[in-house]
Amino acid sequence: MTTLETMAQNAKLASYTLASLDTMTKNKALDAIADKIEENKLLILQENAKDLEAAKSLLESGEINQSTFNRLKLDDNKMRDMVQGIRDVKRLEDPVNKKQWAMGLDTGLDLYRVSCPIGVIGVIFEARPDVIPQICALAVKSANAVLLKGGKEAYNTNVILAKIIKDALNETGAFPQDTINLLFSRDEVAQMLAMDKYIDLIIPRGGNALVQYVKDNTKIPVMGHADGICHIYIDENADVKKATDICIDAKVQYPSACNAVETILVHESLLENYLPQLVMELEKAQVKVKGCEKCKEFAPHLELAAKEDWATEYGDKTVSIKAVKDLFDAIAHINVYGSGHTDCIISEDKQAIDVFMNLVDSAGVFSNVSTRFADGFRYGLGAEVGISTSKTHARGPVGLEGLVIYKYKMYGSGQTVAPYAEGKKTFIHQRII
Amino acid sequence: MTTLETMAQNAKLASYTLASLDTMTKNKALDAIADKIEENKLLILQENAKDLEAAKSLLESGEINQSTFNRLKLDDNKMRDMVQGIRDVKRLEDPVNKKQWAMGLDTGLDLYRVSCPIGVIGVIFEARPDVIPQICALAVKSANAVLLKGGKEAYNTNVILAKIIKDALNETGAFPQDTINLLFSRDEVAQMLAMDKYIDLIIPRGGNALVQYVKDNTKIPVMGHADGICHIYIDENADVKKATDICIDAKVQYPSACNAVETILVHESLLENYLPQLVMELEKAQVKVKGCEKCKEFAPHLELAAKEDWATEYGDKTVSIKAVKDLFDAIAHINVYGSGHTDCIISEDKQAIDVFMNLVDSAGVFSNVSTRFADGFRYGLGAEVGISTSKTHARGPVGLEGLVIYKYKMYGSGQTVAPYAEGKKTFIHQRII
Repeated sequence: MTTLETMAQNAKLASYTLASLDTMTKNKALDAIADKIEENKLLILQENAKDLEAAKSLLESGEINQSTFNRLKLDDNKMRDMVQGIRDVKRLEDPVNKKQWAMGLDTGLDLYRVSCPIGVIGVIFEARPDVIPQICALAVKSANAVLLKGGKEAYNTNVILAKIIKDALNETGAFPQDTINLLFSRDEVAQMLAMDKYIDLIIPRGGNALVQYVKDNTKIPVMGHADGICHIYIDENADVKKATDICIDAKVQYPSACNAVETILVHESLLENYLPQLVMELEKAQVKVKGCEKCKEFAPHLELAAKEDWATEYGDKTVSIKAVKDLFDAIAHINVYGSGHTDCIISEDKQAIDVFMNLVDSAGVFSNVSTRFADGFRYGLGAEVGISTSKTHARGPVGLEGLVIYKYKMYGSGQTVAPYAEGKKTFIHQRII
Repeated sequence: MTTLETMAQNAKLASYTLASLDTMTKNKALDAIADKIEENKLLILQENAKDLEAAKSLLESGEINQSTFNRLKLDDNKMRDMVQGIRDVKRLEDPVNKKQWAMGLDTGLDLYRVSCPIGVIGVIFEARPDVIPQICALAVKSANAVLLKGGKEAYNTNVILAKIIKDALNETGAFPQDTINLLFSRDEVAQMLAMDKYIDLIIPRGGNALVQYVKDNTKIPVMGHADGICHIYIDENADVKKATDICIDAKVQYPSACNAVETILVHESLLENYLPQLVMELEKAQVKVKGCEKCKEFAPHLELAAKEDWATEYGDKTVSIKAVKDLFDAIAHINVYGSGHTDCIISEDKQAIDVFMNLVDSAGVFSNVSTRFADGFRYGLGAEVGISTSKTHARGPVGLEGLVIYKYKMYGSGQTVAPYAEGKKTFIHQRII
């Protein structure tokens, strides 16, 4: 057995014990983690400084870019947010051991569906050391064991953070040793993805390439999203003032976010009187605008959008605009080229909004609001594990609820199936919850 | 594009339309299917006779066994159950378009989490033609498109059933042509498993080998269970009369069922005074009993169970018995050798029951009741899509609810993110539902 396999097996064993921890024990542990991170702030910043020193030369040689460097760097504000984040998770409702549904099958024979942790979760993330306390807090609250693989650029910071968190958990006396596990080498990612025997869910947090690699190389369920190709459709009955404001916010407020807009679909009745104005406002906001042939008739200076543009997540201040014949043309475009993340209609027509929301097959279907609202905190979930574009388990921004599943608990008093199968007894099937 | 790829793509397109059908339209379609199957009963039995004729020689040559032959054969009773099953699904609550959760984010900005179909579901099953109407009924009610691949032995029966169902749906005028799709060749299974672009969920219905093959060869989420290695643990505080009755029912009532017991764990305090009696009663019921070394001390005639026995789903009237030191020893054995299907404790000690139910990591954790109760109909779910041992999406017997997911619908009135990000506006986050 490899070292990693032993680690995963021990995490699995730990997960069984975790499942029975009560809310108070978990909340005390979260406080202990937050306290210990605060106490060790200087030590953490010292270790982070080592990573930053090494990263400087990577930055100079172009192996990493400035935004990776910035994400790697911890400072007082980030440390404060980190600790606050853990205390926020403490305040969330415990997602485990909730009775979701119950049925009386017969006298003295009751069935309960009760939420429980998933088990062992593998999290793969890039050079953002603040992910570790966040994921650990969510894991503690949801009583899951975790295997964490962070970017090697954050090695020293990751090691000290994981050590502090493990120490805090050990001091509680209630948490198994193998609740939190840190992986180091890139090879271990491939090994981890093969461990469907021990790992129940993989959460990749990072760019498209990472997520796609993970999805392509594991049989373990993956929760995440590769692309965020979000659309705004401006309907013939749109309030164009709202349309312009929303398009600019959805592209400009944070262009590299996965919920930023990439393609704007404009109803052809608006091309003559509204499109030139929309383009002008976007360009005033430093957005590079590409357009389809039809759009170019009314805004000739636009660069022609190629077919690839409709399937591109620009991640910067670029947007493509396409003219569509009608609502159904817009919906068809989104269902073919979209990534099932978040898509919005701008319209004052309630019926058009309903049709759009029912027929667009995306995690988030919005009307008259920026796509940038697709976020666990903005949704009021209290936490965000990630955003999922899967069609099973959890979809859209995922809160703590996405880290639990359920089991059925049946309480009998000696019943056998035979008399029911032979028609001598019948089920009553009376809902309790 | 291959024929199958075109079929899957068309099913995906159909799925978008299906999502917007209302309950009445779906219920009318279910009636139409049931009526048309009744009207065409003779035709169906004629086609089934062709399959049976061909199967007879397979039976003689040993290529199929008698139970496969029996499953293939339709008769008046099976036809009646088939039609009744469709009408039963009609009476179930519509799982689509249910508001599960809602949050007011701010004035004029509301978020709803609404259930919706998964999309396209691939179902692979063996030579049981009655699966087709059942799955089609569930697909219609949950508004999913399906790709069905049945055993080749049922070719003629499958073709006529699928044709009748498609005709009934077409006559409604509301269902897309490509809602129901039948696959024919074995090659198509491999192709289907590769179509993660169009297929959202695979449900394999059949033996271990089929399910394991599917799980090993697809990136699409799989809902099902390969093994059903269920345990009964007889605690030191067990009512032994209940224990014996339940063990016999769980093994004998239908030995090849996935929820039949395979291993009985006996607390060592019961070995001297109870084990010989349990063995005798099991043997009286024609069960072959294997035992661990410790058990053989008290029942010397038992065949010694090898290590493989603890990981074996016998599927017949064989059971293995193992002595365990205590409750925790039993739990550890189950978590290592079990398949996460259904496991039961026999005990009058409420605390032992709680510990067992919290620490055993299985879809069903039972106390003082036969494992054979693990079944969607017995649970009162009204339907059973299958039994899942996954740790995500759906677990245990899965009803219609397992065929839906949700989307988030956000209704705004022109809001942009910027003022919230800049602290000029704050979210109210008031639960609506």
